[in-house]
Amino acid sequence: MYENNEIFRIKNNLVISLKMNEIKIFSPATVANVACGFDVLGFCLDNVGDEMVIRKTDKKEINITKIEGFHVPFEIQKNVAGVSALAMYDVIKPDYGFEIEIYKNIKPGSGIGSSAASAAGSVFGMNELLGRPFNKTELTQFAIKGEALANDCEVADNVAAALFGGFTLVKSVTPLEVLQIPSPQQLYATIIHPQIEIKTSEARAILPKDIKLKDAITQWANFGSLIHSLHTNNYELLRKSLHDVIIEPYRSKLIPHYNELKKEAINAGALGSGISGSGPSVFSLSKGIENANAVRDAIKKVYSKTGIAFDIHVSRINKEGVKVIYSH
Amino acid sequence: MYENNEIFRIKNNLVISLKMNEIKIFSPATVANVACGFDVLGFCLDNVGDEMVIRKTDKKEINITKIEGFHVPFEIQKNVAGVSALAMYDVIKPDYGFEIEIYKNIKPGSGIGSSAASAAGSVFGMNELLGRPFNKTELTQFAIKGEALANDCEVADNVAAALFGGFTLVKSVTPLEVLQIPSPQQLYATIIHPQIEIKTSEARAILPKDIKLKDAITQWANFGSLIHSLHTNNYELLRKSLHDVIIEPYRSKLIPHYNELKKEAINAGALGSGISGSGPSVFSLSKGIENANAVRDAIKKVYSKTGIAFDIHVSRINKEGVKVIYSH
Repeated sequence: MYENNEIFRIKNNLVISLKMNEIKIFSPATVANVACGFDVLGFCLDNVGDEMVIRKTDKKEINITKIEGFHVPFEIQKNVAGVSALAMYDVIKPDYGFEIEIYKNIKPGSGIGSSAASAAGSVFGMNELLGRPFNKTELTQFAIKGEALANDCEVADNVAAALFGGFTLVKSVTPLEVLQIPSPQQLYATIIHPQIEIKTSEARAILPKDIKLKDAITQWANFGSLIHSLHTNNYELLRKSLHDVIIEPYRSKLIPHYNELKKEAINAGALGSGISGSGPSVFSLSKGIENANAVRDAIKKVYSKTGIAFDIHVSRINKEGVKVIYSH
Repeated sequence: MYENNEIFRIKNNLVISLKMNEIKIFSPATVANVACGFDVLGFCLDNVGDEMVIRKTDKKEINITKIEGFHVPFEIQKNVAGVSALAMYDVIKPDYGFEIEIYKNIKPGSGIGSSAASAAGSVFGMNELLGRPFNKTELTQFAIKGEALANDCEVADNVAAALFGGFTLVKSVTPLEVLQIPSPQQLYATIIHPQIEIKTSEARAILPKDIKLKDAITQWANFGSLIHSLHTNNYELLRKSLHDVIIEPYRSKLIPHYNELKKEAINAGALGSGISGSGPSVFSLSKGIENANAVRDAIKKVYSKTGIAFDIHVSRINKEGVKVIYSH
């Protein structure tokens, strides 16, 4: 069933993991929906994310021992990182426990996968300390349990992007099937996070239950074209495909100055822009870092006039997902 | 603007075309919609299609001089091959004319692109005789004019598949954008054409104007996955993606024994089945010719019991589109 070098790898991981007591990881922010890919597509950022330290302990339980940055609950059952960690822990039942420190840089409710970063980070780190008994799809399944706490339902687009990296298409949640779509080398994201609150329940309630068939056809033509453009490094087709005729007309109303933001981003050289997750963050994709920086400057200019506080990030696409900072 | 060998190629084509007076072509049948790709995806068959002879004449006009096989009108303005030919002729205005012979093997109204084969064939053949002034996208634009006669509206999914070959995604009709999607090498189609009539108007009227957002999401998840599966030669994913939750529940009612047909095809090894165009033909896709033949035998068995006459074809995917049989 396994090749020799595969057996060596598994044994080696086990040996390393048995010796490994502590790991620090970077758990990235992610953009879900990506214009025409509503509810199924996501991509992973490279320099925006949480950090987490996970440590083996003698007690057979999981504890969150430290939280810095943004506030999230310490109670395991109320913390997305805790819930996903428990879901995994209950399956593997090791004869030791874990403690988790969370350095939360992604503001909850920002629309760039704050809860997904927590949910993905804890299970990724524990999996490393356990000797990688689970593959990325299995890790995503545990992380979904954490996400469910934040979203009231099981969604996988952010956690899949955080764990797999690059662009991910969640073909279905039950059974979970995640497809890794290639990312063109020169693709950069510019993300603006206006410091306003959009309740997920409101962003959900605003959506129609029924849509026009002709709009749906436009959407899947664009979505199929987007997937094709990512496979073929076709930036021009990517530009033509990054359109959302279904969700954006509703949700963009919740984001102040959305239309101007998008217009200026595209004028500055963005291939396309859209709402990140359910907002309020807005993403733009550009070819090359110069364009991504020009987009940053343009949208900074738009938002500086509004009096609304905001953060802006420029990031390449993170093809790896969650990363190990150190382990020992 | 052109490389030297490109100039040579163009000159060479012109010289050949100036000497060329007659061409015989094979214009293939095509499958549009392809389950989750409603209105945008098509693929091209290899051994089912019309033949056409196109000949230069001294008179500056286009005439259809011979029609064999199934009956279609001789009058240029009422014949799809004539209408598309005229659309091209009016642009290029050569100092000679063309006569067209049509050997019609694809029954009009069968749902495998009978009108598209005619519309594509005449413009392809004329383009060869003219020295290839037009590219395939331009040919598709002319062919759409012919299709419009048969469909009352401009659709491109069948004509694009006939002219480009392989799998084609019509991203948009205005402006026309056709994407060529790779075809896995071992993919074969089995097509059954029940000899019943489905009026295009009825197949169109039966469709809902509005659909559920959640069904649309399922459809574009499947469609994106289908495009990914074609890029990655992933037959298993192709199998999981070939589902249509929007159109099939309505149109399948127009095709007698549709559900049994589909069930038996899949039991016999098909990756998936669906309605070809607006029916009544039903396509199945299989990995390898043995499976495609087993599917043929299984659906033959189903339909033999019904008393409805039918044709069955097994074909590999035609990656080339319209083909030249001879020219001189």
